[in-house]
Amino acid sequence: MSSAARPAGRPRSMKAERAIIEATLDMMGEGLSVSDLSIEAVAARAGVGKTTIYRRWAGKEDLIVDALASLKAPMPPLAGVSVRDDLITYLTATMRESTEGRTRCIVTMAMGEAPRYPEMAARFRQIAIEPRRAAVRALLQRGIESGELRPDADVELAMSMLSGTMMWMTRWPVTDGEPVDEELPARIVDMVLTGLAPRS
Amino acid sequence: MSSAARPAGRPRSMKAERAIIEATLDMMGEGLSVSDLSIEAVAARAGVGKTTIYRRWAGKEDLIVDALASLKAPMPPLAGVSVRDDLITYLTATMRESTEGRTRCIVTMAMGEAPRYPEMAARFRQIAIEPRRAAVRALLQRGIESGELRPDADVELAMSMLSGTMMWMTRWPVTDGEPVDEELPARIVDMVLTGLAPRS
Repeated sequence: MSSAARPAGRPRSMKAERAIIEATLDMMGEGLSVSDLSIEAVAARAGVGKTTIYRRWAGKEDLIVDALASLKAPMPPLAGVSVRDDLITYLTATMRESTEGRTRCIVTMAMGEAPRYPEMAARFRQIAIEPRRAAVRALLQRGIESGELRPDADVELAMSMLSGTMMWMTRWPVTDGEPVDEELPARIVDMVLTGLAPRS
Repeated sequence: MSSAARPAGRPRSMKAERAIIEATLDMMGEGLSVSDLSIEAVAARAGVGKTTIYRRWAGKEDLIVDALASLKAPMPPLAGVSVRDDLITYLTATMRESTEGRTRCIVTMAMGEAPRYPEMAARFRQIAIEPRRAAVRALLQRGIESGELRPDADVELAMSMLSGTMMWMTRWPVTDGEPVDEELPARIVDMVLTGLAPRS
């Protein structure tokens, strides 16, 4: 109980933070919605006092945003040999997220709840989504400059085509529980690059 | 109260059925999940007795599947001049669904809940999703046969690319409440057909 007896801050508080984040994610992964979750229940699950949570987060919404953001794998570096390779690297990272059971369940639920919690959704978008979108946008722009992509390529639509197809192919009703093809990132990238119409 | 006094069945029972379906959809659109909904609450909302519901549906799950299926607009005929035109017709119909407020909210929530209700999800898939997927598959096959699409086109992936991109472009985090571009179906179809790489 003597605060002099333990080393100052970081390691211990990081461990508690990790436990709190994990407890939040576990509970969301079990199907609890934002309104179902309480700081009290998270504290009990994480084995910490409520004060420990409030020392770090202003409230439930802030905690949930950080928990959701922690699910995003670090963005892989996108500065390889070709735009095709980099797009495959990027989609491979998003495929891992989309197919990990707990993450998949939480992300789908969070998307469903976003309209009801506009402030949380906006903060999540800002800290977890926009940096990635910016990296993919820069990659596609680089492809236009290098001539790998056509000069009039619709960059915003291409970004949604890559993410939306991956999302769709890894979820119900398409998968229906079957494992996802490891070649999926390359299949998506090649179709987006070459298109369905014959090339003469 | 005399059953002889009213004309047999259809018109009256169809009106009650419609009220029951609408009550179910309204409640789901307000954010009630499958577990939150009860036959009792639906009956009260629809202004009918529970018996009226049980006369038509075996239980809550059957009612919800039919309610969800009723959200699917009738599939437009896909037998136009070109595969491009038909794909645009198809995506225009799905865009209407994706952008209508209540439908959008319910569909997103239902996708999130599907893994927890595998039997309901399977029935919904069978009555509402598979017939559409079959129509789009046939359309793409027709395109391969006519030479409008390349002979090695990955039909299953193309189906997901069309639907997944539309879903993604019409939802948070992409839209963030802004109205959807009316030209979106044509933009998606043209990108899927021609691809991002330059055509020589």
